[in-house]
Amino acid sequence: MNLGINLSFVIKRWVEPPVWARLVRESLGLELVQFTYDLIDPWWPEASRRSMTAEVRKAAGDWGLEIESAFSGLANYCFDGLLHPDAAGRNVSLEWWKRAFDVAAEVGAKASGGPLGGMSVTDASDPKRREQRYHGLLDAVAELSEAARAAGLDRLQVECTPLAREIPYTVDQAKAFLSDLQGRCVVDVKLLVDIGHALYQPLFGPGARMPAWLHGLDHSIGAFHLQNTDFQSDSHWGWPDRRGLFDVAGFANEVRAAGLEDVPAFIEIIYPFELADEEVRDNIASTVMHCRREYAG
Amino acid sequence: MNLGINLSFVIKRWVEPPVWARLVRESLGLELVQFTYDLIDPWWPEASRRSMTAEVRKAAGDWGLEIESAFSGLANYCFDGLLHPDAAGRNVSLEWWKRAFDVAAEVGAKASGGPLGGMSVTDASDPKRREQRYHGLLDAVAELSEAARAAGLDRLQVECTPLAREIPYTVDQAKAFLSDLQGRCVVDVKLLVDIGHALYQPLFGPGARMPAWLHGLDHSIGAFHLQNTDFQSDSHWGWPDRRGLFDVAGFANEVRAAGLEDVPAFIEIIYPFELADEEVRDNIASTVMHCRREYAG
Repeated sequence: MNLGINLSFVIKRWVEPPVWARLVRESLGLELVQFTYDLIDPWWPEASRRSMTAEVRKAAGDWGLEIESAFSGLANYCFDGLLHPDAAGRNVSLEWWKRAFDVAAEVGAKASGGPLGGMSVTDASDPKRREQRYHGLLDAVAELSEAARAAGLDRLQVECTPLAREIPYTVDQAKAFLSDLQGRCVVDVKLLVDIGHALYQPLFGPGARMPAWLHGLDHSIGAFHLQNTDFQSDSHWGWPDRRGLFDVAGFANEVRAAGLEDVPAFIEIIYPFELADEEVRDNIASTVMHCRREYAG
Repeated sequence: MNLGINLSFVIKRWVEPPVWARLVRESLGLELVQFTYDLIDPWWPEASRRSMTAEVRKAAGDWGLEIESAFSGLANYCFDGLLHPDAAGRNVSLEWWKRAFDVAAEVGAKASGGPLGGMSVTDASDPKRREQRYHGLLDAVAELSEAARAAGLDRLQVECTPLAREIPYTVDQAKAFLSDLQGRCVVDVKLLVDIGHALYQPLFGPGARMPAWLHGLDHSIGAFHLQNTDFQSDSHWGWPDRRGLFDVAGFANEVRAAGLEDVPAFIEIIYPFELADEEVRDNIASTVMHCRREYAG
């Protein structure tokens, strides 16, 4: 089992690369990292960005960390992205992703990913516009695959999200999406499955279970996100959390049964900005301990 | 009493300007709006941005809305901003703010604001670096006041936040901050007080009350943010919410007693991205009804 961590827990706290790199390696005992664009926004002017990505790469080297991928965080998820109702909005998202690939390559990652975008309520309620947005998204991903290859990446990682206005959000839609992209992309396109998204009951019902995702998507899954959740929100809580109900050991068994034990699983915890730093530090340490024991143990 | 709404509730849902403008005016019955940079990221390339800001301005005109100010949302709050530990990070934040002023002017606002930034844990724990960051922040705000004036704005609106690593976060610090800026800024610098920040008990204790903020900061307060909260998190819930404890009518009395009834109060509710659209629509409608009755009634 392949356990790593998304750097979501360091944002606005331990943002200096030597600080988080040491924290991940020395305090948490992990080597596998998913970088977050919440640390370096791809929009940032190139000269500033490059000095910062160089420090990330150096710190990762100094502390023996592998940055497996770079991933969209909270900031980019605030926008409609590649499904923006306005063509100008969709174009700026294309531009963001191309810049994101440069950041990914500069920090030493081989893949970049995230949620692709969300339709407006107006577009989503109109079958014709839904269809246009969908086909536009396929074109955008095909175009982005060229940019990813040009940047030196070998994989796009598309996150499934728990919103019916986003794409993809179900097993069937994710399969259709990959099938419709077949032959159109010059790098691999894989899916990232976040257990808190996949098991979100208000959308998927109380019967939602991981094996349907694991067996349905199989080796199209390129990575997992692990979080604690009550299945009633996209919680991104850690362990312990009195509200959380997710059984990591049970998930590990399901992953093994599906033959997906090599797929990296990144812990992705999102703490409130205002939470005391010591509480975050304690909780991320106990979270990693819990996941190591239950998932990788 | 001067009640308005921050557009935080429309992001990723009702993002088209004619859609949210109609919603604000027709469904919510409000005219006073605080625009959010979560709808148009100041980083977006100028040509795309300008076509989108023009639509905002047109929709506001068509629906008789006043865009009083433009304000930093969730996306920009993910970053360390003007208090980033790296000079390159602080410079990109300066650049972001300058672009934000252009967006504000383009949508027809006279002011721009938000939280200014957060120190890293490392910087915040070192008295000398805290001091450097503080003085750097004063320089940055003075510089930004020139850019704001050049963009045609007449006010900067600095938000007080519930984190000891951010500036300003207490009444005393906010007063010192404004006093240290005295004579250095070419536009007015005012404070925005969010009741959920001001009454956050894990930082300010169970005795935190609004009159201390209202009388302490007095006419330095340029605007309020209203939210429902349990005082244990920066909640940004609406009404009704079974967890929420904030008494809007009591706050209205305190505002009147402080002589601040002309200060605009913007409802700022942040819904989970995954929450069903109908629930958001119902909750924002009942929230506005509640605040109109309790605050403005």
